[in-house]
Amino acid sequence: IGEIYTKILRESNVSRDKERLALSLDVGGTKILAALVSHPGHVLCEKLSPTMADGGVEAVVDRMVTLVSDTLDEGGVDISHVEGMGIAVAGAIDTNAGIVTASPNLPNWRDVPLVNILADRFKTAVYVVNDASAAALAEHLRGAGRGTSNMVYLTVSTGIGGGIVIDGELYIGTDGCAGEIGHMVIDSHGPRCNCGNDGCLEALASGTAVAREAVRRLKRGEQSQLLELVEGKLEDIDARVVGIAASVGDSLALDIITRGSRYLGLGMVNLVNIFNPERIVVGGGLSHMGEMLLGPARQVVREKAFKLPAQSVSIVTSELGDEAGVIGAAMFVFQACDKGFPYS
Amino acid sequence: IGEIYTKILRESNVSRDKERLALSLDVGGTKILAALVSHPGHVLCEKLSPTMADGGVEAVVDRMVTLVSDTLDEGGVDISHVEGMGIAVAGAIDTNAGIVTASPNLPNWRDVPLVNILADRFKTAVYVVNDASAAALAEHLRGAGRGTSNMVYLTVSTGIGGGIVIDGELYIGTDGCAGEIGHMVIDSHGPRCNCGNDGCLEALASGTAVAREAVRRLKRGEQSQLLELVEGKLEDIDARVVGIAASVGDSLALDIITRGSRYLGLGMVNLVNIFNPERIVVGGGLSHMGEMLLGPARQVVREKAFKLPAQSVSIVTSELGDEAGVIGAAMFVFQACDKGFPYS
Repeated sequence: IGEIYTKILRESNVSRDKERLALSLDVGGTKILAALVSHPGHVLCEKLSPTMADGGVEAVVDRMVTLVSDTLDEGGVDISHVEGMGIAVAGAIDTNAGIVTASPNLPNWRDVPLVNILADRFKTAVYVVNDASAAALAEHLRGAGRGTSNMVYLTVSTGIGGGIVIDGELYIGTDGCAGEIGHMVIDSHGPRCNCGNDGCLEALASGTAVAREAVRRLKRGEQSQLLELVEGKLEDIDARVVGIAASVGDSLALDIITRGSRYLGLGMVNLVNIFNPERIVVGGGLSHMGEMLLGPARQVVREKAFKLPAQSVSIVTSELGDEAGVIGAAMFVFQACDKGFPYS
Repeated sequence: IGEIYTKILRESNVSRDKERLALSLDVGGTKILAALVSHPGHVLCEKLSPTMADGGVEAVVDRMVTLVSDTLDEGGVDISHVEGMGIAVAGAIDTNAGIVTASPNLPNWRDVPLVNILADRFKTAVYVVNDASAAALAEHLRGAGRGTSNMVYLTVSTGIGGGIVIDGELYIGTDGCAGEIGHMVIDSHGPRCNCGNDGCLEALASGTAVAREAVRRLKRGEQSQLLELVEGKLEDIDARVVGIAASVGDSLALDIITRGSRYLGLGMVNLVNIFNPERIVVGGGLSHMGEMLLGPARQVVREKAFKLPAQSVSIVTSELGDEAGVIGAAMFVFQACDKGFPYS
């Protein structure tokens, strides 16, 4: 089935019988991560498999089923022991109905009733939630947002996703698809976004936007070490490479990262004026750039947001990295058990 | 003192002793409205006074004190009978600290501890809240947002303000200044806003933006009945006049209103993608244009927002009109009594 690896992260000393556990999946465009997660947010065991979304919906679901079974086996627990299954998926998720209505990572998925399919198969409670919302919940409960009441999470990688915590609770909106901060228009005459609109935050500050801008300026003949780094292959330019060049002082690369960061900051100005949050947590691949990404963004917030909310917000990088999705999906399960679902 | 009018709206048949009452003020740039409001949201008695903000902070506060005393007298109730005093003010309000940090309507107010001043004077609980947040609460509990869990309120007049209701509760953020939706940047290369940024929603879709665009196009020599309506005086052009011309079919006026409405719609696209709300309620002077304002905005939401949240949202005009501020400030008092303050 193409399993990539298995990792047993903790052989618990305490008896698992007394632990609260959830099984969770983070379904990405290239890989699916499954994890057995404890209530304090420890990943006890995880397994990774390729998504191979091209193979069609059923094949992906089959891979999810196998991965769940294998993860439970590996962890040595029965499905009856976990409180439920949480699935993090990018895109427009109808969490209340348990349906993946559309996902950029799963191009041929349209209105797939994922919760019903997996609940039938495993006879347990299943929840599907937007991956960035799951990560927001994880960072809020167990990561860089601990202790805050109001927090906005941004994940900056190929695209830009978002999640919102209000008064200590994950806010997912009427259908469960709130938090699409990457598709906030900030420059209505700006570049076309994948979503079809012009000037979304994602079209200006994502990894894709950074890479596109680098290619554009290299084609214009600007000098940079970037060309050496990719051995002249412009198609190999991505945000990671631009970040590397910027970190060794390449001025074009630094300029491009700063430009993206300032647009990210403009998106944050809107979030600060609208949400007056205590914290903005930034995750995703580009967050590994650290201050190179956050510094100029913070500066823009100081310059352009209203003074009172700008003083109150701290802008930090995420703590949970690639596991934020599975940890958050598991936390969603625990909260649904404790508070009922839908919450309201 | 320049009182404009007094209106006793209801001579209650039930004994006031058994009614829950709050005293509230809506402090605008030109006038202050005081009201005695019952728990179901009826304005029992109201008084209006000019603000005369030029006279300085103390003079305005004195006028507020007199207006409160007069309204209580007129309503025939003692201050000990009201549950508290709620004050709606435009601008950056630190609700938790009870301070007006800055207000566009009160240009010489900087960090005025309004709650302390009035609580000392009247020996009652006093709360100060952003006027658009107050109006949002009023529309949610007693107006066009009744029955919804998640609602966004927009007031479109000279400026654009906003208020947010999340899971049935007014959301005011960490300091109390959340909801500044008018200062969401949607066109970062757009016209300069009063706040100093470029391309805020307010700079593109407010009454001021509509009037400015009309003047610009008239100066360019475009034909319109607008010139007759203002007898050639361009300085008399405002959104109301443009609305009147548009309603009788003037094509330039209609074009300008539609342009503003489409920008308003773009702001709503952002709100729909971020909040996935059940309802967007539009109040303020321009909302009297009704479908002329809301129609094109709805169309933009259908075209550009994600399908799932776009299907869930209804976009309607407010029900409470000019009294939304005082009703909402009173509702804030009742909620603070019932749930404690700050809510947290």
